[in-house]
Amino acid sequence: MTRSLDMADLTWPELAEAISNGAGVILPVGATEQHGPHLPLCTDALLATELARAVAAESNSFVAPAISYGYRSRPQVGGGQGFIGTTSLSGVALINQVTDVITEFIRHGFRRICILNWHMENTNFLYEAAFLAKQKDDLGAKILVIESPFDELSPKTMDLLFEGDFPGWAIEHAGILETSLLQYLHPELVREEKIEDGEAPRRVSYDVLPLQEDLVSSNGALWKATLGSAEKGKQTWNEIVPPLVTAVLRELPMDLTVT
Amino acid sequence: MTRSLDMADLTWPELAEAISNGAGVILPVGATEQHGPHLPLCTDALLATELARAVAAESNSFVAPAISYGYRSRPQVGGGQGFIGTTSLSGVALINQVTDVITEFIRHGFRRICILNWHMENTNFLYEAAFLAKQKDDLGAKILVIESPFDELSPKTMDLLFEGDFPGWAIEHAGILETSLLQYLHPELVREEKIEDGEAPRRVSYDVLPLQEDLVSSNGALWKATLGSAEKGKQTWNEIVPPLVTAVLRELPMDLTVT
Amino acid sequence: MTRSLDMADLTWPELAEAISNGAGVILPVGATEQHGPHLPLCTDALLATELARAVAAESNSFVAPAISYGYRSRPQVGGGQGFIGTTSLSGVALINQVTDVITEFIRHGFRRICILNWHMENTNFLYEAAFLAKQKDDLGAKILVIESPFDELSPKTMDLLFEGDFPGWAIEHAGILETSLLQYLHPELVREEKIEDGEAPRRVSYDVLPLQEDLVSSNGALWKATLGSAEKGKQTWNEIVPPLVTAVLRELPMDLTVT
Amino acid sequence: MTRSLDMADLTWPELAEAISNGAGVILPVGATEQHGPHLPLCTDALLATELARAVAAESNSFVAPAISYGYRSRPQVGGGQGFIGTTSLSGVALINQVTDVITEFIRHGFRRICILNWHMENTNFLYEAAFLAKQKDDLGAKILVIESPFDELSPKTMDLLFEGDFPGWAIEHAGILETSLLQYLHPELVREEKIEDGEAPRRVSYDVLPLQEDLVSSNGALWKATLGSAEKGKQTWNEIVPPLVTAVLRELPMDLTVT
Amino acid sequence: MTRSLDMADLTWPELAEAISNGAGVILPVGATEQHGPHLPLCTDALLATELARAVAAESNSFVAPAISYGYRSRPQVGGGQGFIGTTSLSGVALINQVTDVITEFIRHGFRRICILNWHMENTNFLYEAAFLAKQKDDLGAKILVIESPFDELSPKTMDLLFEGDFPGWAIEHAGILETSLLQYLHPELVREEKIEDGEAPRRVSYDVLPLQEDLVSSNGALWKATLGSAEKGKQTWNEIVPPLVTAVLRELPMDLTVT
Amino acid sequence: MTRSLDMADLTWPELAEAISNGAGVILPVGATEQHGPHLPLCTDALLATELARAVAAESNSFVAPAISYGYRSRPQVGGGQGFIGTTSLSGVALINQVTDVITEFIRHGFRRICILNWHMENTNFLYEAAFLAKQKDDLGAKILVIESPFDELSPKTMDLLFEGDFPGWAIEHAGILETSLLQYLHPELVREEKIEDGEAPRRVSYDVLPLQEDLVSSNGALWKATLGSAEKGKQTWNEIVPPLVTAVLRELPMDLTVT
Repeated sequence: MTRSLDMADLTWPELAEAISNGAGVILPVGATEQHGPHLPLCTDALLATELARAVAAESNSFVAPAISYGYRSRPQVGGGQGFIGTTSLSGVALINQVTDVITEFIRHGFRRICILNWHMENTNFLYEAAFLAKQKDDLGAKILVIESPFDELSPKTMDLLFEGDFPGWAIEHAGILETSLLQYLHPELVREEKIEDGEAPRRVSYDVLPLQEDLVSSNGALWKATLGSAEKGKQTWNEIVPPLVTAVLRELPMDLTVT
Repeated sequence: MTRSLDMADLTWPELAEAISNGAGVILPVGATEQHGPHLPLCTDALLATELARAVAAESNSFVAPAISYGYRSRPQVGGGQGFIGTTSLSGVALINQVTDVITEFIRHGFRRICILNWHMENTNFLYEAAFLAKQKDDLGAKILVIESPFDELSPKTMDLLFEGDFPGWAIEHAGILETSLLQYLHPELVREEKIEDGEAPRRVSYDVLPLQEDLVSSNGALWKATLGSAEKGKQTWNEIVPPLVTAVLRELPMDLTVT
Repeated sequence: MTRSLDMADLTWPELAEAISNGAGVILPVGATEQHGPHLPLCTDALLATELARAVAAESNSFVAPAISYGYRSRPQVGGGQGFIGTTSLSGVALINQVTDVITEFIRHGFRRICILNWHMENTNFLYEAAFLAKQKDDLGAKILVIESPFDELSPKTMDLLFEGDFPGWAIEHAGILETSLLQYLHPELVREEKIEDGEAPRRVSYDVLPLQEDLVSSNGALWKATLGSAEKGKQTWNEIVPPLVTAVLRELPMDLTVT
Repeated sequence: MTRSLDMADLTWPELAEAISNGAGVILPVGATEQHGPHLPLCTDALLATELARAVAAESNSFVAPAISYGYRSRPQVGGGQGFIGTTSLSGVALINQVTDVITEFIRHGFRRICILNWHMENTNFLYEAAFLAKQKDDLGAKILVIESPFDELSPKTMDLLFEGDFPGWAIEHAGILETSLLQYLHPELVREEKIEDGEAPRRVSYDVLPLQEDLVSSNGALWKATLGSAEKGKQTWNEIVPPLVTAVLRELPMDLTVT
Repeated sequence: MTRSLDMADLTWPELAEAISNGAGVILPVGATEQHGPHLPLCTDALLATELARAVAAESNSFVAPAISYGYRSRPQVGGGQGFIGTTSLSGVALINQVTDVITEFIRHGFRRICILNWHMENTNFLYEAAFLAKQKDDLGAKILVIESPFDELSPKTMDLLFEGDFPGWAIEHAGILETSLLQYLHPELVREEKIEDGEAPRRVSYDVLPLQEDLVSSNGALWKATLGSAEKGKQTWNEIVPPLVTAVLRELPMDLTVT
Repeated sequence: MTRSLDMADLTWPELAEAISNGAGVILPVGATEQHGPHLPLCTDALLATELARAVAAESNSFVAPAISYGYRSRPQVGGGQGFIGTTSLSGVALINQVTDVITEFIRHGFRRICILNWHMENTNFLYEAAFLAKQKDDLGAKILVIESPFDELSPKTMDLLFEGDFPGWAIEHAGILETSLLQYLHPELVREEKIEDGEAPRRVSYDVLPLQEDLVSSNGALWKATLGSAEKGKQTWNEIVPPLVTAVLRELPMDLTVT
């Protein structure tokens, strides 16, 4: 039997042995959030987990149980808190939970700890959690905080994905990228017959409270979901994963000793 | 395709429709905690989730993403916070997280909300979360808080399970019951060759801090794991589930209207 | 003059000297909670304090000012938050208060610290407080957390008390046991002419929010208060105290040195 | 039997009836704090409670269980946090506890609520608690917050008390006033043979952290305890109580209706 | 160019050098609060800052950015939370902010840290913040907490200021003292033509919630603003500053070494 | 005299009148953070305030006292928490403070509320604060949250500013843009003779804790400060302000009525 990549599938003696052999841990952080009429609420948590597994497989690491509930969805990048199904945490609840979890990883003896996020709204809350956990650390762990899982894609992939009409990452929610990735990784979860484009009537670079109807996509997709395809998903995935592996191996080297 | 029982597998319009048809939601709460040399760290989260699914299937309900990290393990009932792998939250972090999640369920329009726990240490923190969420509720939701998933088993099942030597539920951690349930439900996760009994040298009804070596089971099992079997697990499972379904249907009737 | 057992009756130099002679401290934790038509709201705080005094007298310990306000009353075990007079704290307020108090005991130099609880709903919050205080302790205190002041009574006493009809401890609130104890210890506080049995119309092992009328005893007594007697109280008291003394002397030995 | 003035000595039906007859509640707030070599740690909690009883007796009110642990002692007014025995809460713990308690009083139906303080360091924290509780109140309670139980004494009493040498109230801790009051009210708690004056080597109107030895009284008394007497205590007491009664009757009139 | 006294006008290398030369830091704490019809909302923050600058100039210190929002205004001393323009923080928000700021000062290497307050309601919250920051300090900083910037003024100045009618400091809000100080220091901010006296119909030494109209000054001035003058302001200022300089130089000596 | 744009320079009756005439309020949020060897620590707070004033002047708004202390500096965008002078708040302290302030603005009667940020690390914390304040709002305020004060600049300005070598906004800290803006707006605060370029040895899109030396710029500038000029600053400023005015006038129209 292949050893599972999921930390929680191990017994405690197995984990203890793995840690003594230099194993690291990756905490996937996602959200439970509307993703248009065609993608499931678990999209972010699932992508964070799959990404974590892909990286863990190449870096002597384990994937911890995902943080399934993320920070509040914001209208411009995720549709906002008006959708049924979007199930979010307050900032403080997210900070506290992740701080506690990282603190426990440190107690286990992990020196190589990575937070891997796929939900833009979690930004800064995750950094704060890592910062607070590190402040209490007297065992010398190193924490890699990846709030944005990719910086930029190659021009070739950008062309393939967006066919010349890139709207900016911020609004690529339930759009071409996420649709394609799920079509590639989990086609069984994509409602192909429900795919449709979406867009807020107005697009701005700030937020307004209370929610303004014309700043929210009515179907929850923020862009051209119809342009997604499994092939696009595959190529993008294959471009996203390797730099993450490289980052983990560089910042959390397999033979990391306490600094 | 059979509709998934997992809320997060739905799209938001699917969930909205289900709620308008009276669907309820069950939040499984477990832990990431050592379970001896033979059961995985995910045991509690997995059992809570499986139980929630079994109940959901009979009660027009969905299972929300599990709370995978629970309150700190206590030595007398879970081995305590000395084990590698036991990854716990502080009381406040658990309260805040669950309060937020339940508050979101209420916003979605759920009237039938159930918290289903399988980790004794979560007791009272879950009730507090439900209480706080209910305090803010002006939509009329009803919340069923099941901190102990079963009250008592039939004498027949008790005899089958414990063969006359019942140690009390408190210490039945990674013991006959949990081992049997996993052997029945997820045999692929049970390290059969590693099963061994366990027991703390001393057994008391209080706690001592710091951890006392003689109050902790050295292998993490608190009782006779070797007496477990899939058959025992099956019979127990079949006795545990129906009363839970009955409770949900009684307290959260399918046609619940706002009170 | 006999030295008082109450810590707060001492002057600071007296306390300082006592601590240097190995004195311990016991923190009684109770509640201000309805106890039926015949027992006062102070019942839990009073019993916790009396118990603490009885134990302190035999273990070179002092009794700290009681925590008089406990966690929210739960319907199945205390009548719930619907009663006038039941004056409760949120979980966080209770945790923070007890954490601070224990932290101060440690600063005073106490090595032998005991939390002694008589209010089931305080469970886990007290453990969390002790855990948090211990995390900050660099002076080596030992903390004994007794959330349930007795584990089981002898068959003889059980027979005497319940006359064959034991409903389970959970609902023994303002019932035979507590009525008898107050009749024995503080008869002046028992309204003998108001004693009556009580019971919730339905008895379940979970909780429902908002409060359900048929899950709450209308008079606040959860069981057969009329069967109480001072004689029963005396015998039970005499059976409860010694094991507590034994526990304190074993876990917090008089000559405890820093570990 | 005279009805007790202590709320917690009542049963819930008794309290419910009293409230329906317009009864108010007084919450005494004190501290557990060193009071020199001759007064007990309970001095502040005791004086707050006695004062509350005296006022309650004249105003159709009950005395709630005292807040026995107060905010941290400050060197200039209470000796500071360096003394053994001084057992204090953080500001947040005190705020949260009192907020919760007042919120419960409001739920009970009390319209006439008084916080009565005898520990200077609790100032502002108590007001904040009252403010927060009032913010949540939709039942129309009125809260009287008395952080300083007396404003000024008559010249005659000042002369009697201080014999011409008044050092300012701030440092009158365990000094003439408190010593006299306890000699009058609870002589059994005063160590007459241990009475001695005390004073910090330097007296300033600010604070320095960490504690500075020359800003703290070495014996814990901040002024001339030796000048205390039961007679002085009696006269002062008789001057302090009536204005408090007047204040309660004016601000919380017996027939207060919701505003 | 004269070096600025404001810390935030420096570059980081300039500050680093200053600290290595023994520089201290003063944190002015004020409020944004109504000050009658003639003084601006910034009065407290401005006076705290000006005072800090005057002290800094004589003590090798810098003035940190002021805490501009203070604790809630109280009716008896600042008019209360009913006025438009009074923009206040909760107690917890104030404590947390100041704790964080002081903690950062300590990290910078400051050994000489002073909190200088001009808003009576901030009392105790500031001490708590300093206490919490000091608890975490392992670098040996010394913190001077000046909650009341002056203790008493000379009889001569009192006569000049109040012309024989001193109402007590508590209600000297937007009255003679503050009016005079702004007339002297910032005449451009004083609406001379709007100056008028003010007074609450009743004056008491406690607080009542909700706000009582007859306990609040209708124009926001609590005393005789019309008696203010720049000359009075100048003399008072010149009497307030030197003792503060003395206090800083004594408690935070220029050559302070870690204790 | 021209009316000040700063809210705190007003008296309360002036502010009350302005609000009744539809005035809005802008809360500038900055930081106290190192900005290389040539810019002062106040750079972010100052730019936020100047921007707020420029917008207020065109939109019948007032500028509230700035939030001078921001969230922790992150190495990739601000140099990180290793620099002397960088004085930061925890996430929770920032959230609580801004929530309280916005809540007060709502109480004053402001319907038009804008948060205007110039410190990238404050992102999400400010949104959370606005969200929490809005949740409690029952007066119908509208809140505009501008976490990034500009979205993109014209190609012409980008060419002028960066001369063809744009490194991405993230690292434009104490670089060409901020240097130019201060040279234009506050030349007296720029140490011209100290201007030098800066750059972290490595540039990555994630964070590592503890701080890694090669991910931090040694002098604190993250880019080519030497290329700054007042002329560049002027042109950029003139391009940044108008869209902000437009946004405020659109989202918070002068005649906003409660929605």
